[in-house]
Amino acid sequence: MSIMSGRVSIVGAGPGDPGLLTRKAVARLRAADLVLYDALVDVRVLKFARRAQRFFVGKRAGRSRAGASRGLNEVSQQAIHALMIRAARRGRRVVRLKGGDPFVFGRGGEEALALGAAGVPFEIIPGVSSALAAPALAGIPLTHRGTASAFLVVTGHDADRFSSAIGGPTKATLVVLMGLGRSAALACELIDRGWPRGTPAAVIFEASTPRQQTWRGRLDDLASDGPQIESDGPATIVIGDVAALELTGEARQINAPEETINVSRR
Amino acid sequence: MSIMSGRVSIVGAGPGDPGLLTRKAVARLRAADLVLYDALVDVRVLKFARRAQRFFVGKRAGRSRAGASRGLNEVSQQAIHALMIRAARRGRRVVRLKGGDPFVFGRGGEEALALGAAGVPFEIIPGVSSALAAPALAGIPLTHRGTASAFLVVTGHDADRFSSAIGGPTKATLVVLMGLGRSAALACELIDRGWPRGTPAAVIFEASTPRQQTWRGRLDDLASDGPQIESDGPATIVIGDVAALELTGEARQINAPEETINVSRR
Repeated sequence: MSIMSGRVSIVGAGPGDPGLLTRKAVARLRAADLVLYDALVDVRVLKFARRAQRFFVGKRAGRSRAGASRGLNEVSQQAIHALMIRAARRGRRVVRLKGGDPFVFGRGGEEALALGAAGVPFEIIPGVSSALAAPALAGIPLTHRGTASAFLVVTGHDADRFSSAIGGPTKATLVVLMGLGRSAALACELIDRGWPRGTPAAVIFEASTPRQQTWRGRLDDLASDGPQIESDGPATIVIGDVAALELTGEARQINAPEETINVSRR
Repeated sequence: MSIMSGRVSIVGAGPGDPGLLTRKAVARLRAADLVLYDALVDVRVLKFARRAQRFFVGKRAGRSRAGASRGLNEVSQQAIHALMIRAARRGRRVVRLKGGDPFVFGRGGEEALALGAAGVPFEIIPGVSSALAAPALAGIPLTHRGTASAFLVVTGHDADRFSSAIGGPTKATLVVLMGLGRSAALACELIDRGWPRGTPAAVIFEASTPRQQTWRGRLDDLASDGPQIESDGPATIVIGDVAALELTGEARQINAPEETINVSRR
């Protein structure tokens, strides 16, 4: 009867830290027969899927963390759909694992549509999106009383379009995913549209991983030199007054052994 | 030496379903001596904090899920800061538990600032935000190829301001938190600004709980009658073409016993 239980769980893997996986994500990984994972998925989260076959199906194979070092090939979106559908029809429990949240620039909607059209049962398990978590882990609240009361999330490809839609400077925080390559052009466009050159900006690299680094500057820095940080991983750009905040509260020491926590300020 | 280990974890509790807690959130709740939780926190997530003292410090006591039925009083923001600081200085492990993500309209930034000023070690643990999860659980992807390539998250209080900043209709999805009371006014303003009357809209009530309900309609429905749904819980409004999608894939049945899963379409 195992043929009756095939299904697909489209699961958000969060920004990288396995501690930021949801309980449901862990449960689905543990029960999975097959895991299809993307380039933005941190390989550390795959440890929960010990009994599953695990396939890298990322589309950024050339520069992905998860796939590049293994020389894995690209898999087309259509092939991903076919893999999921075939496996589910054979009664397998499939986890389609996506970095961050599956419905935020993850093509989760397309995959859900394909599964629905094929009559394959599926579910969506939301995840912690890097759009929110990366700034938070750098101590930047996307909203902050008196500073920002809204936020706009775009990809680098579309950032100029939506920054122009916003028009002049607002109290909305602008979050740009996958935009590092276009960050200088975006910053120039924002300045052209009246955003103050001194608007705080930050870029968080590989948030929630041991390699997390944060660049901080102003919009005009982003328009000229920009961050000189070596990283192949994902970067999240934050533009707006909140980017000047750094509410990190010795957070790193909290994860260290207790005796190293600095409480000398008491 | 317990006085040396006091610290505060500002933790996102997610939208309600305990399965959408992160692993770190669970770990901090299990280790907590004291949990201070908000009105938007689902009481089911408190079960992980069995050994902790648990205090409701919500500011919507009159209509909160967690506090109202118990007749609990409001606690001022200053009092919350004082409670956290005092407890941490006494060596206690404090979890400040907030619905969704602590840095999205949660005043997490203010609390982090207060802790930093007091020299109290703290950390931020991002959570699954209702802004993203509520639409996802209703089958609405905030971004979808060819339909929406950005999203703007606002509160009801500010929604008109930012919708006006956006100007005319865009391919950005508009997500409004805590905006049900102003939804008709907001919809009218958007129509005045040129958003098509037929723009799809949805309101998701109490997402991820057993009481989840979704209203679907158009912008002009929202401007007139709006959703006639009985609910005291949080509501998330989604406006934009993606709100017409309903990618739910028999998701509910996946959580049911296997034999009830409908695979008759195979």
